[in-house]
Amino acid sequence: MSFYDKLKFDANGLIPAIIQEQKTGRVVMMAWMNRASLESTIATGKTHFWSRSRQKYWMKGEESGNTQTVRDIAFDCDGDVLLIQVEQKGPACHEGYNSCFFRSIDGKGETFKTTEPQLLTPEQMYKKKG
Amino acid sequence: MSFYDKLKFDANGLIPAIIQEQKTGRVVMMAWMNRASLESTIATGKTHFWSRSRQKYWMKGEESGNTQTVRDIAFDCDGDVLLIQVEQKGPACHEGYNSCFFRSIDGKGETFKTTEPQLLTPEQMYKKKG
Repeated sequence: MSFYDKLKFDANGLIPAIIQEQKTGRVVMMAWMNRASLESTIATGKTHFWSRSRQKYWMKGEESGNTQTVRDIAFDCDGDVLLIQVEQKGPACHEGYNSCFFRSIDGKGETFKTTEPQLLTPEQMYKKKG
Repeated sequence: MSFYDKLKFDANGLIPAIIQEQKTGRVVMMAWMNRASLESTIATGKTHFWSRSRQKYWMKGEESGNTQTVRDIAFDCDGDVLLIQVEQKGPACHEGYNSCFFRSIDGKGETFKTTEPQLLTPEQMYKKKG
């Protein structure tokens, strides 16, 4: 049975993909894939997503240069979530943090705190490549 | 500014919550929360979710006994995904695996492989508590 036969894309044809840095175990981001972006991810070994806000394909790092090389693609018991192990180049977050999850709740939710250093400013992120 | 002010729930009032076992770094599941289940999670220190298929609240482990004690709640740069660190009691997956992500793609997607041992059968999972 094909891997694709086990997957359930949602009503919009999308499936969430959790991206974990294999080396550190850090969860760096979550984004959405459709079948075509998943196929591109598998074919090229670099993560590709579908942007719901921009309604377009994107390869992670296409502007910043901070690509993700795929090491493993797992799927959950219900077949409706992907967990992808990657080798992450540079900060994953467009705000210049290693992980998009750089803030945590403080106390009972009254406030929050930043838990990671900002490695680059967004401006530095997006002029790196050029 | 409150933590809640940073969050964006989707059109159905939901936000995906990635659950990571703090001790091992293993991503064990992803499920959905609405504001009320997130509030219950924060208030009780145990993960609570909203089931889209059953249209009801559930506390993880309410039937199996395999609860998740919350250690940290992070949110991403866009405020539309949660990453929750937990202390996981027993297998997280209802199929008896430590993680719901117990299968990975093999090769280029023609097939898949099971990557974790099954610790309990589903039958064993759900008679443990009684």
